[in-house]
Amino acid sequence: MMTTHFADRLFEATREKKSHVVAGLDPRAELMPPELIRKALRRRGDSPEAMAEAIVEFNAAVIDAVADLVAAVKCQIAYYECYGVAGLSAYRRTIRLARDHGLIVIGDVKRNDIGSTAKAYAMAHLRDDAAHNDDRLASDFHVDAITVNPLFGADGVLPFVERAARSGSGVFVLVRTSNRTSGQLQDLQCNSRPFHRHVASLVQEWGEGFVGKQHYSLLGAVVGATFPAQLKELRAAMPGIPFLIPGFGAQGGGVADAIEGFDRHGGGALVSSSRALIYAFRNGRYASDRGGDAFKDAVRAATEDMRSALWEGVRRKR
Amino acid sequence: MMTTHFADRLFEATREKKSHVVAGLDPRAELMPPELIRKALRRRGDSPEAMAEAIVEFNAAVIDAVADLVAAVKCQIAYYECYGVAGLSAYRRTIRLARDHGLIVIGDVKRNDIGSTAKAYAMAHLRDDAAHNDDRLASDFHVDAITVNPLFGADGVLPFVERAARSGSGVFVLVRTSNRTSGQLQDLQCNSRPFHRHVASLVQEWGEGFVGKQHYSLLGAVVGATFPAQLKELRAAMPGIPFLIPGFGAQGGGVADAIEGFDRHGGGALVSSSRALIYAFRNGRYASDRGGDAFKDAVRAATEDMRSALWEGVRRKR
Repeated sequence: MMTTHFADRLFEATREKKSHVVAGLDPRAELMPPELIRKALRRRGDSPEAMAEAIVEFNAAVIDAVADLVAAVKCQIAYYECYGVAGLSAYRRTIRLARDHGLIVIGDVKRNDIGSTAKAYAMAHLRDDAAHNDDRLASDFHVDAITVNPLFGADGVLPFVERAARSGSGVFVLVRTSNRTSGQLQDLQCNSRPFHRHVASLVQEWGEGFVGKQHYSLLGAVVGATFPAQLKELRAAMPGIPFLIPGFGAQGGGVADAIEGFDRHGGGALVSSSRALIYAFRNGRYASDRGGDAFKDAVRAATEDMRSALWEGVRRKR
Repeated sequence: MMTTHFADRLFEATREKKSHVVAGLDPRAELMPPELIRKALRRRGDSPEAMAEAIVEFNAAVIDAVADLVAAVKCQIAYYECYGVAGLSAYRRTIRLARDHGLIVIGDVKRNDIGSTAKAYAMAHLRDDAAHNDDRLASDFHVDAITVNPLFGADGVLPFVERAARSGSGVFVLVRTSNRTSGQLQDLQCNSRPFHRHVASLVQEWGEGFVGKQHYSLLGAVVGATFPAQLKELRAAMPGIPFLIPGFGAQGGGVADAIEGFDRHGGGALVSSSRALIYAFRNGRYASDRGGDAFKDAVRAATEDMRSALWEGVRRKR
């Protein structure tokens, strides 16, 4: 039974691996190695089941390639959900493969709803070690932490936090997302502060009762690397809140941007990247002529590059 | 191939059934008929698979009881997701059962993400009749309409709208939710208008290019019955946007509240209720001493009461 505080586990993994990197396991048919997909389709015919098989094979290779270089992995559930029940079986299998490698797994699910429904989502995605052992419930999608959308306010977020607290799990609330049009609502000026600063205040308040030994809460924030000035301001506004920083690599954020999210001790944040790492074999810099599982070498090389660039950047900031 | 515009289909069903009611198929173990759960557990042992079986049996009975009394059914996916892969198989099966009864099905999924990921979610939950027939993709979770969270702005919402337009499907964006703490963020004053009014303006703008014969868009809004004054204002602010109104019944909204969401012709809105309908056998007014499937009679009676009260209330408003 794992009851160590989530933030303590997260930053322990960072130190142990010397890595602030979270690799995104986002299986996209149009980007995965075509050979691997063709093989699965030959075996099982054109079907979601074949795609699910290809996804698990791809993820197993990626996990094997990056396990010692990343602090955690993150699975974007949408890329599994689009293959229906078969795809979500692949999601379940991927979580287990990552766990078998000792990895912390973040479920990027962005769930949200009114209180009673938020509770059901929390049951779906987070463990509860205090619950009497109920064999009727499923642990299929249980991960170490999930992302959550804050629009419903406290009673849409706290059910996740309370359940996470009972199992050493974590919750990352969307504060400022990395996409192009995120400012349409998130940057609105509300009572002379941008909307996302109000979300930040709530996250700070909600997280206070759930702080671990290293002074970080199990309640974290998602803040994109694509808006570095806001990332810096939000870091100052939310001491004790771990940051999950997407938008690095393919989405445009670089090391100089991402390090704005770290505290002055070089802690408190993880940076996630998916496309630039797991599809690195499509990048001239890492491409290989060898077929087969040569893509693994590219994944590993790209992840090592991101790991060392980020580690060095954060070190220099201290 | 169904290519009739979503809003036209929706309001045609309203007229045909003389009903503004959407019945919520939200299977909750603690509220379902205990006998039905015990039977499934005896057959399959304490397991998510047994619960999934009980859920399908319960939903089949409810669908059969309400099919001619409701304009649509709505499935809250969280109550399936918490039973993992087995639960989502029950979600798939429930969608098919409702379709077999000719019902419009709304997937209450509240998905949201950056553009590329929103596209994957759209593929998961909505059909695309213009796509070449791709057997690799799953239609497991395809429904007539889904709910979507607007926090990411245009590029998190339009991928859903564009896909919906290619299959006569619909999208309901959260504008003002029905829960207690929804005002924490949704009522913030931003540039002298509440936050939810900014969401409303975006929905109005996004929906304009997608209007059907009856002057309603395929893009709709979720606005809770629990804040009737705002419901009235939002109805005026969003002409041509169909409303899906939750918060009726168990959450506190009544007929007088809900009718604020209808237009002056008595159209443009549907009202959803879950607990007060499908668990009506727990309500003294509808309770029955008979065991077995007597709960169906209570479901039917409660749905008929809501249907006629709402139909009459809306008629008086015209």
